[in-house]
Amino acid sequence: MDAVEVIAAKRDGRELTGAQIAWTVDAYTRGEVAEEQMSALCMAVVWRGMTRAEVGAWTEAMLRSGERLDFSDLARPTTDKHSTGGVGDKITLVLTPLVAACGAAVPQLSGRGLGHTGGTLDKLEAIPGWRGDLAPADMRRVLADVGAVVCAAGPGLAPADRRLYALRDVTGTVESIPLIAASIMSKKLAEGTASLVLDVKVGSGAFMKDPASARELAETMVAIGTDHGVRTRALLTAMDAPLGRAVGNAVEVAEAVEVLAGGGPSDVVELTLALAREMLEAAGIAADPAAALRGGAAMDVWRRMVAAQGGDPDAPLPAAAERRDILAPATGTLTRLDARAVGVAAWRLGAGRARKEDPVSPGAGVLLHAKPGEPVRAGRPLLTLLTDEPARFDRAAEALADAFEVDGPGGRLPLVLDRVG
Amino acid sequence: MDAVEVIAAKRDGRELTGAQIAWTVDAYTRGEVAEEQMSALCMAVVWRGMTRAEVGAWTEAMLRSGERLDFSDLARPTTDKHSTGGVGDKITLVLTPLVAACGAAVPQLSGRGLGHTGGTLDKLEAIPGWRGDLAPADMRRVLADVGAVVCAAGPGLAPADRRLYALRDVTGTVESIPLIAASIMSKKLAEGTASLVLDVKVGSGAFMKDPASARELAETMVAIGTDHGVRTRALLTAMDAPLGRAVGNAVEVAEAVEVLAGGGPSDVVELTLALAREMLEAAGIAADPAAALRGGAAMDVWRRMVAAQGGDPDAPLPAAAERRDILAPATGTLTRLDARAVGVAAWRLGAGRARKEDPVSPGAGVLLHAKPGEPVRAGRPLLTLLTDEPARFDRAAEALADAFEVDGPGGRLPLVLDRVG
Repeated sequence: MDAVEVIAAKRDGRELTGAQIAWTVDAYTRGEVAEEQMSALCMAVVWRGMTRAEVGAWTEAMLRSGERLDFSDLARPTTDKHSTGGVGDKITLVLTPLVAACGAAVPQLSGRGLGHTGGTLDKLEAIPGWRGDLAPADMRRVLADVGAVVCAAGPGLAPADRRLYALRDVTGTVESIPLIAASIMSKKLAEGTASLVLDVKVGSGAFMKDPASARELAETMVAIGTDHGVRTRALLTAMDAPLGRAVGNAVEVAEAVEVLAGGGPSDVVELTLALAREMLEAAGIAADPAAALRGGAAMDVWRRMVAAQGGDPDAPLPAAAERRDILAPATGTLTRLDARAVGVAAWRLGAGRARKEDPVSPGAGVLLHAKPGEPVRAGRPLLTLLTDEPARFDRAAEALADAFEVDGPGGRLPLVLDRVG
Repeated sequence: MDAVEVIAAKRDGRELTGAQIAWTVDAYTRGEVAEEQMSALCMAVVWRGMTRAEVGAWTEAMLRSGERLDFSDLARPTTDKHSTGGVGDKITLVLTPLVAACGAAVPQLSGRGLGHTGGTLDKLEAIPGWRGDLAPADMRRVLADVGAVVCAAGPGLAPADRRLYALRDVTGTVESIPLIAASIMSKKLAEGTASLVLDVKVGSGAFMKDPASARELAETMVAIGTDHGVRTRALLTAMDAPLGRAVGNAVEVAEAVEVLAGGGPSDVVELTLALAREMLEAAGIAADPAAALRGGAAMDVWRRMVAAQGGDPDAPLPAAAERRDILAPATGTLTRLDARAVGVAAWRLGAGRARKEDPVSPGAGVLLHAKPGEPVRAGRPLLTLLTDEPARFDRAAEALADAFEVDGPGGRLPLVLDRVG
């Protein structure tokens, strides 16, 4: 086979064969197809798209580039959730122990944050002692013992995707629904889960700004999962405003613990339960997650899960050294609080990173004193910015300049917009 | 500036600014924009195209990547011709001395053949002693003394184009009219000619298979030349059948000499005169090229030009060791003789190269005993294949399997289809 022929076929709008895709991804992994050839092919895919058969073959080829975990010998059915990333999205922290408390095994491989969206590993690392870089044997042991584990995906899972993502990031070829779907699904399928629920975010704080693109991404991923024998479904959920009232690392852990204790913001509770129901149904488990949350069973699993990974669930969480309030400009109803702007502010305060190798500040972030639909009073705190470096306040505040509106036209997305699969 | 922003702008269909294009090409030349970024941008250009302003800025940036020759101090006006490449296209060999004989200076920078189209340098190198790799000072001396010079473009002219072409070749991004136009024009403008005539080939043996694409390419190049202050015009000419009756290297030199002697195939004579008239008019010279051809003035310049570059115009040309005839399958009128197939056959016989570094055989090629519209007789030679290695005959003959037709529907393109500029 010849890379130029494959590129030219996609460029000219022809469907690639399974053999062409398998060869191209494999040859790219071996260095035989050059970076400049793969980037040209990716741009041709941005242009021409991929059929269900093509995106399935592409995912399969990336999956085959590395190892595939197998938890089929566990007594419990495995199920997992993946979110496309949002602002204040601490759902995994509550959902993982909750679904485990209901009888499933949840092998949650997570990532770190990049840009304005946070990463689950960064959040959990705010807990003193907690470690997410488990060896495969340790991951398996925690999963078998506790029923839940949250850890970093090792370099052996879908290595082609890792390399390809780095390439797409510098070549303007991230924005392709089939390539995004194949990237996510190759990692999730490598994880060896029997069922999977996808939380596809829609809105300013999400990668997919509009419901139509989010639906297309959800449908593409559900098709890939189904074609690979994994029971897959997706919820389209709102990311026009942040989830909950805390955005950052330690502050999100604290809010997740509130929810596990039976309290916390209603949107976090509602979305966690909606996703838990989907996961349990996909895993074939008849259990009521609301009862497990209310009764403290989820909190028990949380504490055991944190401890099994070296964390102290009772240790005080790190706090930022400095805080600054952003005041409400008028009295009335908060009608808009832009998710992306809040995410960018938290990032600039130190909660996120610009480059993969940067550290994050565990205490930095943004607290919300009102959510869209709630009353605010002129001159009273609307947001609180948290950071260890006060020099960061001004740039964070700049990001929030047009982030909120009082008594504006408003109009929020429903928390769960739709369901696919 | 940031390469990803530039790529994303083109990907999303926005017009790039002159500053964006200048920065990108310059940064690519310096190695700051990576190969994989440039190939993604080129694929986005294949997809979205470029406006007249964009393609002008792109050409200008490539031109600025190297030196620009200046012949404005010569007593004679400079003029040049560029052909997009065809089969049996020995026009440059006749045209250059002919136009010089009429009073112009012709600084003809030529290339080598690649694939099924021949290169002028390869043809002239069939002449014992002739050298095309002149230093700039030698090129200038020959041009001043003889009025005509044919030599290789040095590495200092539009080096960005050289690097970019090599990249496009392996990334399926050759097929973009603006990128083709910018590539050709950056080299031609670097050559420092005051006027330029483009021979844009159309048909099976040409890069542009249909008149609409050829016209678009011609219009794009004429616009670039005009915007750069060079009097530029283009002819769209037929490349559905080979030009003349000889395809190869030495055999094309021999045919060119026949034309210079006042004979030769009528299509070669007609096209040479048409292009000569355009060049002379563009250069502001009132002279009759037909008289210069008939009277032997062009032949005189040819002999001086060959000798000035180390060649012996009287030396016998190399001949192939082996020949094989392809016989006419029927008696009637030859209605089709496919240019591309004949070009591929000559290439396989050794007249062309598959890779830049390969040598070519001076004697190899194909002789045509009939041209479309002429009578043929069953069992009589239609083509003669020439090679030094008889093992090459079978593969060459295969290329010709569907190359000709006797008493078919026929229908040739007119030799000159159109004129632009």
